[in-house]
Amino acid sequence: SNSIDNTTSSENNHPSLILTQQGVAAIRANLGSIPIFDKTLAATQKEVDLEIEKGFDVPTPKDYSGGYTHETHKKNYVLMQKAGALYQILDDEKYAKFVKDMLFDYAKKYPTWPIHPKPRSYARGRVFWQCLNDSNWLVYTSQAYDCIYNYLTEEERSTLETDLFRPFADHISKESPQFFNRVHNHATWGNAAVGMMALAMDDAELLDRALNGVKVENFDPNEKDNDGGYIRKDGQKIGFFANVNEPFSPDGYFTEGPYYQRYASYPFLIFAQALQNKQPEQKVFEYKDGVLLKSVNALLNLSDVDGDFFLLNDAQKGMSYYNSSLISTVDIGYHFGGNNPGLLSIAKKQGEVTLDDAGLAVALGIKAGKEEPFVKKSIELSDGADGDEGAVGILRSDDLELVYKYTAHGLSHGHFDKLSFALFEDGDEIVQDYGMSRFVNIEQKGGGNYLKENKTWSKQTIAHNTITQNEKSQFKGKYDIGSKFHSNTYVFSSDNENVQVASAKEENAYPGTKLHRTMVTIKDEDYRNPYILDIMRVSSEKSNQYDLPLYYLGHIMQTNFEYNKLSTPQILGKSDGYQHLYKEASALANGENIKLTWLLNNKFYSYSAITSTNDEIILGRIGANDPAYNLRNEPTLILRKKNAKDALFVSIIESHGTYSPVTELAEDAYSNVKLLEVVYNSEKYTAVKLVMNTNTAKVFIISNLDNSSETAHKLEINNKEYAWKGSFILTEIK
Amino acid sequence: SNSIDNTTSSENNHPSLILTQQGVAAIRANLGSIPIFDKTLAATQKEVDLEIEKGFDVPTPKDYSGGYTHETHKKNYVLMQKAGALYQILDDEKYAKFVKDMLFDYAKKYPTWPIHPKPRSYARGRVFWQCLNDSNWLVYTSQAYDCIYNYLTEEERSTLETDLFRPFADHISKESPQFFNRVHNHATWGNAAVGMMALAMDDAELLDRALNGVKVENFDPNEKDNDGGYIRKDGQKIGFFANVNEPFSPDGYFTEGPYYQRYASYPFLIFAQALQNKQPEQKVFEYKDGVLLKSVNALLNLSDVDGDFFLLNDAQKGMSYYNSSLISTVDIGYHFGGNNPGLLSIAKKQGEVTLDDAGLAVALGIKAGKEEPFVKKSIELSDGADGDEGAVGILRSDDLELVYKYTAHGLSHGHFDKLSFALFEDGDEIVQDYGMSRFVNIEQKGGGNYLKENKTWSKQTIAHNTITQNEKSQFKGKYDIGSKFHSNTYVFSSDNENVQVASAKEENAYPGTKLHRTMVTIKDEDYRNPYILDIMRVSSEKSNQYDLPLYYLGHIMQTNFEYNKLSTPQILGKSDGYQHLYKEASALANGENIKLTWLLNNKFYSYSAITSTNDEIILGRIGANDPAYNLRNEPTLILRKKNAKDALFVSIIESHGTYSPVTELAEDAYSNVKLLEVVYNSEKYTAVKLVMNTNTAKVFIISNLDNSSETAHKLEINNKEYAWKGSFILTEIK
Ligand SMILES: [Ca+2]
Ligand SMILES: [Ca+2]
Ligand SMILES: [Ca+2]
Ligand SMILES: [Mg+2]
Ligand SMILES: [Mg+2]
Ligand SMILES: [Mg+2]
Ligand SMILES: [Mg+2]
Repeated sequence: SNSIDNTTSSENNHPSLILTQQGVAAIRANLGSIPIFDKTLAATQKEVDLEIEKGFDVPTPKDYSGGYTHETHKKNYVLMQKAGALYQILDDEKYAKFVKDMLFDYAKKYPTWPIHPKPRSYARGRVFWQCLNDSNWLVYTSQAYDCIYNYLTEEERSTLETDLFRPFADHISKESPQFFNRVHNHATWGNAAVGMMALAMDDAELLDRALNGVKVENFDPNEKDNDGGYIRKDGQKIGFFANVNEPFSPDGYFTEGPYYQRYASYPFLIFAQALQNKQPEQKVFEYKDGVLLKSVNALLNLSDVDGDFFLLNDAQKGMSYYNSSLISTVDIGYHFGGNNPGLLSIAKKQGEVTLDDAGLAVALGIKAGKEEPFVKKSIELSDGADGDEGAVGILRSDDLELVYKYTAHGLSHGHFDKLSFALFEDGDEIVQDYGMSRFVNIEQKGGGNYLKENKTWSKQTIAHNTITQNEKSQFKGKYDIGSKFHSNTYVFSSDNENVQVASAKEENAYPGTKLHRTMVTIKDEDYRNPYILDIMRVSSEKSNQYDLPLYYLGHIMQTNFEYNKLSTPQILGKSDGYQHLYKEASALANGENIKLTWLLNNKFYSYSAITSTNDEIILGRIGANDPAYNLRNEPTLILRKKNAKDALFVSIIESHGTYSPVTELAEDAYSNVKLLEVVYNSEKYTAVKLVMNTNTAKVFIISNLDNSSETAHKLEINNKEYAWKGSFILTEIK
Repeated sequence: SNSIDNTTSSENNHPSLILTQQGVAAIRANLGSIPIFDKTLAATQKEVDLEIEKGFDVPTPKDYSGGYTHETHKKNYVLMQKAGALYQILDDEKYAKFVKDMLFDYAKKYPTWPIHPKPRSYARGRVFWQCLNDSNWLVYTSQAYDCIYNYLTEEERSTLETDLFRPFADHISKESPQFFNRVHNHATWGNAAVGMMALAMDDAELLDRALNGVKVENFDPNEKDNDGGYIRKDGQKIGFFANVNEPFSPDGYFTEGPYYQRYASYPFLIFAQALQNKQPEQKVFEYKDGVLLKSVNALLNLSDVDGDFFLLNDAQKGMSYYNSSLISTVDIGYHFGGNNPGLLSIAKKQGEVTLDDAGLAVALGIKAGKEEPFVKKSIELSDGADGDEGAVGILRSDDLELVYKYTAHGLSHGHFDKLSFALFEDGDEIVQDYGMSRFVNIEQKGGGNYLKENKTWSKQTIAHNTITQNEKSQFKGKYDIGSKFHSNTYVFSSDNENVQVASAKEENAYPGTKLHRTMVTIKDEDYRNPYILDIMRVSSEKSNQYDLPLYYLGHIMQTNFEYNKLSTPQILGKSDGYQHLYKEASALANGENIKLTWLLNNKFYSYSAITSTNDEIILGRIGANDPAYNLRNEPTLILRKKNAKDALFVSIIESHGTYSPVTELAEDAYSNVKLLEVVYNSEKYTAVKLVMNTNTAKVFIISNLDNSSETAHKLEINNKEYAWKGSFILTEIK
């Protein structure tokens, strides 16, 4: 027998995936006195009752997402999962019968369905056009099966397992190794799907397959998926644990970024929960020093004050911790991760819990008043399986959140955006990362799939707030090259809330050119808000053109430089994303500071930058070569230095004032920065002087080669000696 | 003596403008038990106490708005008004002393100040650059004086009145008849200023001047103000009552539109309140059948569900009934207008009341739980002193608000936009009126004043959702011509909430061409939202080009027609606003319905329109010839018919679906309109057939010549006879 405990499948250990027998007893005992759980239960019951009344359909697979058969099968598995939980919690057989009837309909039809007729996927399913969706189905359905296990006769179970579950699991694993044997969110779903059904059926062989992958003789290491991502590197470990190990850094950062972590976190955590409940000896939550639980904290820290995820790599704006997969994430994180009271406040905002043991724990925690705010502080999250492949640095200072990216590539969803940043205030993006070119599930826009502009625009370097050299994207815009490298943390220091520093280096994006960017948040008691100092230092072996864009969002109020507005916009370049930018206006710098003030959401922002004579300033807009209106027509300012070997871009971004269209009063509408000046720049040190309009002056110095916090430095600038310990100093001068 | 009651000024009748002796007693008796009043009082006290501590300044006038002397004098009058009220309510002499000290400083300096040095105004003040601001000063200061009247000795009062108030009032009236003797919001402020000080001082001569204007021998009827508005028509009545009579229609609509009504309503109502308190025999609130009180209701009805005013004529977006002048408007409207409980709910949202008798009445009403929702229904507000110069028709249907403009010109703030409309859903503009080109009080943008684009773009016809003929604005874009005419209501019917109709005609905008537009909101039980049917019928004596833009806001999702996107945008035309539009793409119609679906605020909207073969469809964007980034780069779709004498533009606008970036689900993303068809069109009748995707079909017929609701009509279309009573019918067909 395949059975895990070497006995026949036992009715004594069901349910045991997300609900346990003890959990069900506790839930039943508390029902009616746990408001957030009761509310979720009532809503679920209402929804499922309505669907039971309407009856279900199990149609022959035919459509892509958005189409009837796709959406119906998707609805079916969600309903089965919910009905299964309702059966356990409410002890009402109509829910079990609903699941059973639907499962038997599937068991009757599934064996007759060939491979899905739509050809687009590198791994086609049988119910859906891709194995990924088939895996979704199995992750949910395994929970439903576990819940009604004892309601079924042994013969019924045997029919379902033989006709439906085993062939289903085989299709997405043995028959689709290019899907199952990856380190990728697709494979994570596949592994979790097979693993959860294995646990539901007590099938040791299937569980081993889920945890360790399918043994396959020959595989092609050059094979790629639909998005151009590699299937599998030679020698790469596979299966669930490999999928936990590789994409998560020791800090719990998921290399594809928060948008995909949000999606992936459901199978990771739901399967971990099931494994913990059924086989606690696997110690899944202790794996890699508890990385799955750390990932919950990391993911929540990758959201702005409203809970919207930062845009890193492919990501759609507006995705947030209100997404349903985050309900599980938060509840499981709370239940298995030591009952962090901060998670209760997020669960409360979500207004919903999972209908299982974890959801009960959260509901009881809230009921007991244990809730505390989930405080997000400045944090650096390392990237890479070993945490040594760069990081994301998040500096939080009052209402500002600066997201600075110096990571590895991020697998197939990565962007060529080393050393880029985005800035948020009060949960609104002020200096944006464009995100992806895709309208997920909006069929009119390319079927809701990735649009070609995702590759030609969104992933390109010029679409980001970082350096593009010679109008070519980093790593030649090639995934194969970009995947081999990562940036490196240089300094991350957030202990002093008045001067927080994130500094990183990138030396592979453009061979022969070294980039070193230092971003600083400075709290100055003279002003209402902190401001951002940005020092981008470029050193190259030869002369290049360097473009540094600022994707400010909002309406230009004023510039301190004269620009020549073109009568009609011109296309900025030919390739690497430049073909999607319009040049609207330009100016030549005279070597003095330039300043741009803009208005967004009734707040005034300013960008002040040091220039060299003949630097070019380009006022641009996204939207050229966009035949189907797929792009958003948002503005940018590009500071361009030509024929430069070494270059230093220094700027300050401020949020300095407000406007009210109701009172019509503008407060602090002008920048507070009077003068920015480079007072020293060598291989060893870079020093910038900041003079504010109160005439106070500060100097910020960074040591460019020694990032130790212990080293003592001494430097004379303009006959004044500066001495300090550690890699940087900000000091006021007379 | 000049005294009104032919006695010397009496201490027995102070305060008596906005606070009365009885009012003060009642306020003092209720303090501490009237939360909204107590809260406002505490905030005011805190603010004034802080200023008393800091001390005040009365600087020599020098600056335009935004500058120090301007802002300081403005702050001073507001503070005096507040301190005066605090003195009465709290009976604390420090407030009276503060007002007295400041007034004496003004009394000492004012006589030494010549005309204000800044030359921009057609009527320069002495404290401010324009008499308008001097009048603001006096309106507020008269209230302060009234409050501390009894605190002053007769000699002190004599000094203030002789050295400050009378010369001040004389300057803005006798010495500035081009300002004072107008029918214009400027003159309203002037009249109210002089009138309120007259009441405070008991000066009958001054009061007569306020109510009836200054007698001047010769005036120039061709004289214009800074904005190009006429000063005064020959034979026009002047003074406060004339200013109430002319701009307000019998429905209380203010011809300049809600943005300026909001501004003007303060002097109208604050002076009316003072006049009512002091000279009830004037029956000011009964004047013109109670038009001042009706204006409160009209103004509130000209706001969307959030309280933001609709954009009619010059108007800045975001102005709302939260503006401070609306606090008085609502409180006075409640106190003197029969205690409408709906106003209490608005006062409650405002969270603030005036510190006077009216504010007390509101606070007591709220305390007594009398509050009811302020329900805004469909309403037509006539324009013109006699209500016969067209109207604004507002159709409200579920969450949609359609604002259809067929008014008179709107004085110097009018736009050339006859028969234009705007559409709101849930308080957000979906199809926009651009508003004005001005960033009020944002000094960086042209000093916060009107920008030149206001004239070259915002006022022009093509900037609006109405017909432009031959690329020329209505009335040749000339104020002198536009001011002579108005559109006419044809039908306004809102009794049947399923079919509401606003229909109007314009026959002067383009001589020889007649425009007749009918807008219909249709509630159809098959769909979640009502939709808008729009029939624009054009008849001309000769062939013309007709452009009908749709200023949709949002991102294009899909069109059902192929368009040719230009590689770089082209400027659409040479003048009349066309020079500010970019053509981005175009298409030629093949005679079938065209459809545009767009996404805004996560809602899907569609525009479906009937076309004739070779109609041109232009996808455009605002922003050409905008050297200083003064314009917003928003999109439009223009349907262009060339070489046409008569033309019929028929379209439907729907709000049909929603998107969530959190669940990533798109619901009802597609238009429900299958086919729109003109089935009959003659001089007498126009009939349109609407086929929906449920295959239900409806016919809407309008009688083009007879708008009586009593006439019986009979019409045969396609062998089917339609018989109905009244000017229109919507009927389902098989
Ligand atoms: Ca990695
Ligand atoms: Ca946000
Ligand atoms: Ca609004
Ligand atoms: Mg990116
Ligand atoms: Mg990006
Ligand atoms: Mg207008
Ligand atoms: Mg307008």
